[in-house]
Amino acid sequence: MSSNAGTLFRITTFGESHGGAVGVVVDGVLPGMELSEADIQPDLDRRRPGQSRLVTQRKETDTVEILSGVYNGLTLGTPIAMMVPNLDQQSGAYDDMADTYRPSHADYTTEAKYGLRAVAGGGRASARETIGRVAAAAIARKMLAQHGIKVLGWVSQVHETVAKVDADTVTLRQVEADPTRCPDPDAAARMTVAIEGARSDGDSLGGTVTCVARGVPAGLGEPVFDKLEADLAKAVMSLPATKGFEVGSGFSAITMTGREHNDQFVPGPDGHPHTVTNYSGGIQGGISNGETIVMRAAFKPTATIASEQQTVTRDNAPTTLSAKGRHDPCVLPRAVPMVEAAALLVLADHWLRQRALNQ
Amino acid sequence: MSSNAGTLFRITTFGESHGGAVGVVVDGVLPGMELSEADIQPDLDRRRPGQSRLVTQRKETDTVEILSGVYNGLTLGTPIAMMVPNLDQQSGAYDDMADTYRPSHADYTTEAKYGLRAVAGGGRASARETIGRVAAAAIARKMLAQHGIKVLGWVSQVHETVAKVDADTVTLRQVEADPTRCPDPDAAARMTVAIEGARSDGDSLGGTVTCVARGVPAGLGEPVFDKLEADLAKAVMSLPATKGFEVGSGFSAITMTGREHNDQFVPGPDGHPHTVTNYSGGIQGGISNGETIVMRAAFKPTATIASEQQTVTRDNAPTTLSAKGRHDPCVLPRAVPMVEAAALLVLADHWLRQRALNQ
Amino acid sequence: MSSNAGTLFRITTFGESHGGAVGVVVDGVLPGMELSEADIQPDLDRRRPGQSRLVTQRKETDTVEILSGVYNGLTLGTPIAMMVPNLDQQSGAYDDMADTYRPSHADYTTEAKYGLRAVAGGGRASARETIGRVAAAAIARKMLAQHGIKVLGWVSQVHETVAKVDADTVTLRQVEADPTRCPDPDAAARMTVAIEGARSDGDSLGGTVTCVARGVPAGLGEPVFDKLEADLAKAVMSLPATKGFEVGSGFSAITMTGREHNDQFVPGPDGHPHTVTNYSGGIQGGISNGETIVMRAAFKPTATIASEQQTVTRDNAPTTLSAKGRHDPCVLPRAVPMVEAAALLVLADHWLRQRALNQ
Amino acid sequence: MSSNAGTLFRITTFGESHGGAVGVVVDGVLPGMELSEADIQPDLDRRRPGQSRLVTQRKETDTVEILSGVYNGLTLGTPIAMMVPNLDQQSGAYDDMADTYRPSHADYTTEAKYGLRAVAGGGRASARETIGRVAAAAIARKMLAQHGIKVLGWVSQVHETVAKVDADTVTLRQVEADPTRCPDPDAAARMTVAIEGARSDGDSLGGTVTCVARGVPAGLGEPVFDKLEADLAKAVMSLPATKGFEVGSGFSAITMTGREHNDQFVPGPDGHPHTVTNYSGGIQGGISNGETIVMRAAFKPTATIASEQQTVTRDNAPTTLSAKGRHDPCVLPRAVPMVEAAALLVLADHWLRQRALNQ
Repeated sequence: MSSNAGTLFRITTFGESHGGAVGVVVDGVLPGMELSEADIQPDLDRRRPGQSRLVTQRKETDTVEILSGVYNGLTLGTPIAMMVPNLDQQSGAYDDMADTYRPSHADYTTEAKYGLRAVAGGGRASARETIGRVAAAAIARKMLAQHGIKVLGWVSQVHETVAKVDADTVTLRQVEADPTRCPDPDAAARMTVAIEGARSDGDSLGGTVTCVARGVPAGLGEPVFDKLEADLAKAVMSLPATKGFEVGSGFSAITMTGREHNDQFVPGPDGHPHTVTNYSGGIQGGISNGETIVMRAAFKPTATIASEQQTVTRDNAPTTLSAKGRHDPCVLPRAVPMVEAAALLVLADHWLRQRALNQ
Repeated sequence: MSSNAGTLFRITTFGESHGGAVGVVVDGVLPGMELSEADIQPDLDRRRPGQSRLVTQRKETDTVEILSGVYNGLTLGTPIAMMVPNLDQQSGAYDDMADTYRPSHADYTTEAKYGLRAVAGGGRASARETIGRVAAAAIARKMLAQHGIKVLGWVSQVHETVAKVDADTVTLRQVEADPTRCPDPDAAARMTVAIEGARSDGDSLGGTVTCVARGVPAGLGEPVFDKLEADLAKAVMSLPATKGFEVGSGFSAITMTGREHNDQFVPGPDGHPHTVTNYSGGIQGGISNGETIVMRAAFKPTATIASEQQTVTRDNAPTTLSAKGRHDPCVLPRAVPMVEAAALLVLADHWLRQRALNQ
Repeated sequence: MSSNAGTLFRITTFGESHGGAVGVVVDGVLPGMELSEADIQPDLDRRRPGQSRLVTQRKETDTVEILSGVYNGLTLGTPIAMMVPNLDQQSGAYDDMADTYRPSHADYTTEAKYGLRAVAGGGRASARETIGRVAAAAIARKMLAQHGIKVLGWVSQVHETVAKVDADTVTLRQVEADPTRCPDPDAAARMTVAIEGARSDGDSLGGTVTCVARGVPAGLGEPVFDKLEADLAKAVMSLPATKGFEVGSGFSAITMTGREHNDQFVPGPDGHPHTVTNYSGGIQGGISNGETIVMRAAFKPTATIASEQQTVTRDNAPTTLSAKGRHDPCVLPRAVPMVEAAALLVLADHWLRQRALNQ
Repeated sequence: MSSNAGTLFRITTFGESHGGAVGVVVDGVLPGMELSEADIQPDLDRRRPGQSRLVTQRKETDTVEILSGVYNGLTLGTPIAMMVPNLDQQSGAYDDMADTYRPSHADYTTEAKYGLRAVAGGGRASARETIGRVAAAAIARKMLAQHGIKVLGWVSQVHETVAKVDADTVTLRQVEADPTRCPDPDAAARMTVAIEGARSDGDSLGGTVTCVARGVPAGLGEPVFDKLEADLAKAVMSLPATKGFEVGSGFSAITMTGREHNDQFVPGPDGHPHTVTNYSGGIQGGISNGETIVMRAAFKPTATIASEQQTVTRDNAPTTLSAKGRHDPCVLPRAVPMVEAAALLVLADHWLRQRALNQ
């Protein structure tokens, strides 16, 4: 179960940072949908290294190839396998880490679990694994868009800089206008300065991604274990470097009272109830209520930093380490398509599950 | 999949708030373990209504009966079914809600999903559903304790009152010393005042539960989708009324730099590396690292309040509603065993999964 | 996974032969369907002991109680838990088997797996476990019947006696007309003599159940692992005492040539292709083709016999054993509702899965 | 779920007959095992077209490439993706089948399910899909062999020719000595004549594969749904062209009495009970008993034949069809590694599951 996610829209990813390829098999795509690599590549381009000076300079084009499940430009309903070769593997950069555990990385825990690890590049814990998720989610995005569901994420905070963004109106164009993927230009400028400062200081920064899903019909989700917010939380918290997740009011709900926090209903012009406020974040009792779904994810500062740190070797001897590989001083700009992917994959799955129930 | 959770330690819950019974079937309990209802009841007693004046006064003894899977006092390795009858069903209290959607409840979304709902008591969205999880987790607790793993939760915040608690040393006895389940006596006293004030004001309060898992060996979890923090997030966010989840530093990681946040390693006296700080919260790359696992969950203020609120009927007509049923002015004291249950069920599952890998 | 089956129509059974109760939790029942115990009991009555002199005389009424998932006589879409108490437990009959392994039973293998077993009655390996499946399948039967799908099984062979039955026209009334559940009266008479002869001789007999599913629309099933015949095979081969499964031509296909065996298509009056023959048994490439699904299951002679047999004790010492408990000299009459249950549960699951795909 | 199988040893296959590639992702391989393509290729060579004049002459080398999960020649414990490109695609051969349903193929049912199909080569229903299973099973074979478990299959019948084979002693070398994969030389000679006769007559033949698993420890399997024979039945019946499955005595159990059929126990020299006979086929109550597991699968005669047959077009108009593509006049020789693969994948999964239980 380690490499599978989803019930009806179901993905299986494979690949390490340094190996032949990374990829994904996507099950549950509806048949008869037009699909080609051109539908997938744009989301991979938003995720890939080297897209701006703010991110890691590893040189990967991350060009995707569809291996199966599409015939004459149409999906068959059968599994769609997609592959992205690993090209720029500077394995030598990892030589001095072979016997040393990088702090706050998965080196030690991977060995504790498996007894060995792929020294070069972090293996399966590498952010390259998310290529498969982003590629699969691009298909989910197209399928859901045909039914009016749209997902959009942006960088809402980097370190101390908080963006001012209207979650109801912000657009993809605004998000993509700046390499930070922060649609508040003032904040974006300050974030840029902060990120570049951290890099030159051998340090790194964290932040938050906010993500909305618009057009989700009421009724998606499950009342108990597979609550929509629970599956979203799992999907987001399975992304590298996430430390927290919240939906709607999130942690700010703590200091509100029930009277303040309850989303009172008013009759909607479409014949359905709508809410005056949206502290619920579009989900009540695990099931979507037709309002915009709003979630937020906290990312820690990148663990790989150029500064010297205290650590131990495989033999439990003390040593120090300064990272030499290429890395992101702040993962937030590249984290946006990853969070969107998490949301898209969960929504596609629950959308299919609801089709079985609700004809 | 709506009523199942877990891969090897796998539970299936059933039951609505008002019906014959609620319960659970637990699969994956190791054979040959001593088990009786006396192992289960204490955790149910911590969860049940009426245990103190701070919680709902619905009168339920929540007495559990084991129906299968135990023979001569020993577990058989086969599914353990447990049942708790519903006794105190004041269905009449819900009569005027039959056609009205309670704000921030699952009434509307349940109907949007299924086309109908059990009007009395919220049906499957009721907190009574968690009886099954708490009962199952009591078995997980016993099984894990035999291998040195202990889980403990407490109320760390109610509304504006933040408790001061040493996560490394706090004990169950300290948590249970006060009906608030806050082990900081000063904070507990202020929480009590706040909760009673909210109740008399027809209002409600939210807060946070912090939960630790001690003695977890390094190696539990998975590197990708089933990261330990991802499964914990899902389990916690599938509890009623949760709005946020964080592990380790959580949202506070945002304003730290990598240099500050990285948990540097030092050689441990047990021959394994240990970390100087624990911002990782005991999990790195989805896999436990042997440090204490620390997580925190945000609970919204109870949606059921006595104050009048604006809402709509099933026919999309405006109306108002004031709750008359018995309810908790603050779910936090009863949420503690629920969060512990979420953590225990996930840890039991991953502990069994690691046994298959690591002999 | 040991106690779960199905993807969308998903059941979890629990209970041993001698314990508080046996039962099942059924997930995936469509909401809004009328349901009461009266829909379940008839199938349980066809399965229960003591229904005729041909079967075991254990005295169980097998009266089912619905614990959840139904409100005001309608299904809620939430899990339906059902329970049947164990009443007639003559545990003493098993005393001399506590340390002795019954030949061709699960006694030894259960201990090899779990390290212990419930001595009385075979524990989880008892045919009483199938109560849960038959009860769940009664719900599937009602749900599928509302969409034109009907499942019917009968005893087609007992030992040397082969029944002559027209699979296209045989009715439930004809099957239920005789305690053997063989709708060929001549064969039924000979089967009765054979079964009673075996019983008085301290011996037992096997045979086959044939089962058809009529009205299954084309398109149910999956092309690879979850082929419809594969899931049917698993469901049937997970019933106690089954040794073989075949679909359509089955083993008789071996001695046919492709020219003989291919089911040629002709235009159907309904605008769909139909087949002249049905050697495919209603399934081609794992997916139903609209023809009647035909399957056959082989049951071994009951392992529990009164004759003395050679065996060993838990300490690997030779001994002998003659069964004293009540038992069936031939399971076939009671196997009919079990095979139907296997087919119904698989069809309900695939029918729901196809709804998600094919709107 | 359509493309996944297994719980802990879990595979996901992808690919159509005519597309970029076929392949598999294998999860659950124990870490630290030496593995390279050289471990996989021999089993693929036993499965591939063109290996002898008895099978289809499609020209595919079926050369496998490992894409992930192996580092420095050792398995990492992470998913192992393997890919085989499709080379010899004579799509033109299928042009006249674009609107015509081949009898006893999956053409019509695939369109009934998905609304469209990959006309060339049968798409996902092609036997090329089994490349992924055979490749995954080669890893299972290596892993299980290190723990003393060996699986071997052979052709035991083609049409009227039944082989005489001692299941206890037959070896891989004997099986591979003849292109028929029948280890009885006399029978193999007659099978060869029969198969070549069928081909020149534009016809095809079916038969049986018998498969044994030796060295399986007692305790593998589950008592209810995931009985070992049930999972084996599903795996075998999910192979193309299978019509029947039996374990141990199989359908021959029908005409035996309990006294004849029961496998009496005798004390084994290893301190464990052993059985005098093996009608159980190595499995009792769903769980292995330490004896050799014996199963048999029936394969229908190949549906693709050169003779003219009656069929219909997509518009439900009558027409005729004579196959022109390359095809096997008898699938049995190539079915042997497929049946072995089915058995290996199930045994690897249950072997891992038992590790979690039984330390």
